[in-house]
Amino acid sequence: MTFELDRTAAVTPVGGGAYAADLDAGWVVGGGVNGGYVLAVATAALRAELAEVGHLDPVSASGYYLSPSVPGAATVRTRVLRTGGRRSTVAATLSQEQDGVEVDRLTVLAVLGAVADGGAPASDAAVEAVRRQPAPVDLPPVEQCVSASDAPDGGRLAPPLMQRLDLRLDPAYAGWAVGRPSRAGVVQGWMRLADHRPPDPWSLLVVVDALPPVSFDLGLPGWAPTVELTVHVRQRPVDGWLRVRHATRTVAGGSFEEDCEVWDEAGHLVAQSRQLALLPRAPRGRS
Amino acid sequence: MTFELDRTAAVTPVGGGAYAADLDAGWVVGGGVNGGYVLAVATAALRAELAEVGHLDPVSASGYYLSPSVPGAATVRTRVLRTGGRRSTVAATLSQEQDGVEVDRLTVLAVLGAVADGGAPASDAAVEAVRRQPAPVDLPPVEQCVSASDAPDGGRLAPPLMQRLDLRLDPAYAGWAVGRPSRAGVVQGWMRLADHRPPDPWSLLVVVDALPPVSFDLGLPGWAPTVELTVHVRQRPVDGWLRVRHATRTVAGGSFEEDCEVWDEAGHLVAQSRQLALLPRAPRGRS
Repeated sequence: MTFELDRTAAVTPVGGGAYAADLDAGWVVGGGVNGGYVLAVATAALRAELAEVGHLDPVSASGYYLSPSVPGAATVRTRVLRTGGRRSTVAATLSQEQDGVEVDRLTVLAVLGAVADGGAPASDAAVEAVRRQPAPVDLPPVEQCVSASDAPDGGRLAPPLMQRLDLRLDPAYAGWAVGRPSRAGVVQGWMRLADHRPPDPWSLLVVVDALPPVSFDLGLPGWAPTVELTVHVRQRPVDGWLRVRHATRTVAGGSFEEDCEVWDEAGHLVAQSRQLALLPRAPRGRS
Repeated sequence: MTFELDRTAAVTPVGGGAYAADLDAGWVVGGGVNGGYVLAVATAALRAELAEVGHLDPVSASGYYLSPSVPGAATVRTRVLRTGGRRSTVAATLSQEQDGVEVDRLTVLAVLGAVADGGAPASDAAVEAVRRQPAPVDLPPVEQCVSASDAPDGGRLAPPLMQRLDLRLDPAYAGWAVGRPSRAGVVQGWMRLADHRPPDPWSLLVVVDALPPVSFDLGLPGWAPTVELTVHVRQRPVDGWLRVRHATRTVAGGSFEEDCEVWDEAGHLVAQSRQLALLPRAPRGRS
């Protein structure tokens, strides 16, 4: 527990499958506490619940966001739905007390198991023969990318979340920070946790939701609430920088999907996520 | 209730948020009853539960598959997690009695609301300006595609599921049916329900999981169990044929993602889904 993420996303068992957590103000961004961090807290409780059977890595996790989380005490209630030899299916709901009433923030379905190393051989030759992955996104060198400390007054790059991460944005898609969005619907860059905590399957839950939303790059700077976020952790990352790309291809009917892909320094695709988010309304007077 | 899907996926309230269903043998394929059909049955119960507030369309649905469903009686238990003005977040678990014991088959988190028409104008000009979607997949004309009735003895195209659908596969990616997979990891074609039931947001839950798995086109004909399937319904489809494309880009670490995109006859992207599935093992003696 020497790294910040492990410290701020820690949970304490309180019996009956319930866990106490304390959402840290350092992860506040936009409309509340960052959704990936809240998902990691809920999943920390699921890992604790499955520690005995050794299913510690999130293989798949779907979070449905019920209300914006706020810093402070939270309770995670877990339910084990199915335990198998290699993986278990589990559910969790994270809630917070608000004016004396328990309010649900996030409900999660997940499969936990063991995520394989990228170099691990496939189970047989026929499977090995079809191994494939998308090529890592091409990014300028880290030192040519844009970090929060490059912004004169911090501006949009300055929420507390940005101090938890060492994020270097590809300048080709960072113009929204100075009012010149590319309108490509892309945000991408290099990322690692600020204290250089090595990435693992669990910390990737934070990584997939930590970039600024692609709606900023569309020229829609308002809050874009997440309806649902599903993460698939595909391989165990090696230590080092991660390449992270967010993109949208469908902006219609009041919503957009934000697809995230994450590659590790070995060039392996280590996680994919998709979230469905609601389009922000344009600021008054600008529509 | 004149169409087959409505008839075979119907649910009857039995009180306390529970619904009785009868999984139809006509939807059997591979290792059990088709996952998209089972998701549609569970969602039918959620729609019934939310009928009073008028939230009838699945906007997002994540199904986690716990055990293979079999034809016969099933119970869907629903829970309303959050009701809002425009959408509600809900959960359902579908179970079946097996040797006197209740066994869970599928657990679902979903958001239901009202899915907009493709032609509906965006809420403001700034949002309208960024409207976009992927172009409909290019397919040969329906009559140049391959249907189940083209296979000499039916072969792999003949499970009961294939009689529920009028499916015309793009021959470029149908070679697996005669032992010559393209190995591109793609399956695509035209689809409609066999009795020409007009598509709607709910029936798209079946559409996204009804094509043969892309693992067939990779040359891996075994059963590829679904870990998780998330569907986002993006627009209300117009009546007519649907273009459906399944593809995988990442085959590694014992799993693959199967991304599905569905366009209606007006050329609008109406649904997207992603499932995480486990790679089948190669048949013995062939690896």
